[in-house]
Amino acid sequence: MPIIRVEMFTGRNRDQKRELVKELTEAFVRTCGGSPDALTVVISDVEKEDWGSGGVLCADKYPD
Amino acid sequence: MPIIRVEMFTGRNRDQKRELVKELTEAFVRTCGGSPDALTVVISDVEKEDWGSGGVLCADKYPD
Amino acid sequence: MPIIRVEMFTGRNRDQKRELVKELTEAFVRTCGGSPDALTVVISDVEKEDWGSGGVLCADKYPD
Amino acid sequence: MPIIRVEMFTGRNRDQKRELVKELTEAFVRTCGGSPDALTVVISDVEKEDWGSGGVLCADKYPD
Amino acid sequence: MPIIRVEMFTGRNRDQKRELVKELTEAFVRTCGGSPDALTVVISDVEKEDWGSGGVLCADKYPD
Amino acid sequence: MPIIRVEMFTGRNRDQKRELVKELTEAFVRTCGGSPDALTVVISDVEKEDWGSGGVLCADKYPD
Repeated sequence: MPIIRVEMFTGRNRDQKRELVKELTEAFVRTCGGSPDALTVVISDVEKEDWGSGGVLCADKYPD
Repeated sequence: MPIIRVEMFTGRNRDQKRELVKELTEAFVRTCGGSPDALTVVISDVEKEDWGSGGVLCADKYPD
Repeated sequence: MPIIRVEMFTGRNRDQKRELVKELTEAFVRTCGGSPDALTVVISDVEKEDWGSGGVLCADKYPD
Repeated sequence: MPIIRVEMFTGRNRDQKRELVKELTEAFVRTCGGSPDALTVVISDVEKEDWGSGGVLCADKYPD
Repeated sequence: MPIIRVEMFTGRNRDQKRELVKELTEAFVRTCGGSPDALTVVISDVEKEDWGSGGVLCADKYPD
Repeated sequence: MPIIRVEMFTGRNRDQKRELVKELTEAFVRTCGGSPDALTVVISDVEKEDWGSGGVLCADKYPD
């Protein structure tokens, strides 16, 4: 039943997302129990233009 | 004032979203009261590449 | 697989939440298809002290 | 450590987002304390087709 | 229509939340336009036991 | 910069949350890179009364 959601900068490819989903699910089951089948992961890619840190847009802070 | 947010696979068209907003709003007011005018619905389309279930990416589990 | 989340003022009882979950699920399936079994609803009760509208805390705007 | 997230209609440009991040961060620190460096802002642009109000899709209510 | 949500450590009082709602709303309108009346703010108090940073629980990192 | 949020049934103790934060952080860094210091985890405990699945309240489906 648990839901894990991840917000991260755009740029990871499908292989990384596949591994991320697998490893987050395993990490949850190992530490909190339950069945992996019941666990949902939702990933949001966030553009640097839509992320701020310390009052500064990440598009300015970390230009490509 | 209530906020309903929906995450679902990409693919529904505007007619379906229109009906979804209408019916979710009616369902809320019918069961919990309040005015429909105060209710907000936000929809997020999620790609199968960004959704995992049972430790497996939905892009792999349900290929198009 | 869809996830519906609801934020509303604290105060609804279990019967209302039971009906809300049932009706939101039916509304989704009716308009967007899919199986009700795959659908998750998560409810968050929000205190009036934690909700603002028009720049004003709802605890001030709508005192009990 | 605080996280502020903003959902708004698509359409603001990078300059507006830059100012938004700056001003939200300052507003938080001024009222709640803490260091601006610890504060994260995440912005989500939402299409009018994905936003409902009063049971009506905003794409219908506020056509471009 | 915009929605701003804030997650922060538990501990701010109602006066701080009142000011926070007021100032976040003003900051949004000043930088992105729109009417303050259409803007919603939702605050979530998060316990240090429910917040992790750098792989460490904040309850351990910042004990009371 | 990434943010991971977990929604799960109320009931895990601090030791489980500590391990969860540690292991989710490691899983993210291993698969997607970046520094663990930049990663935030936020946990939400959800009551069975606030969680629905298949149109049924989990408080009814899985009574204590």
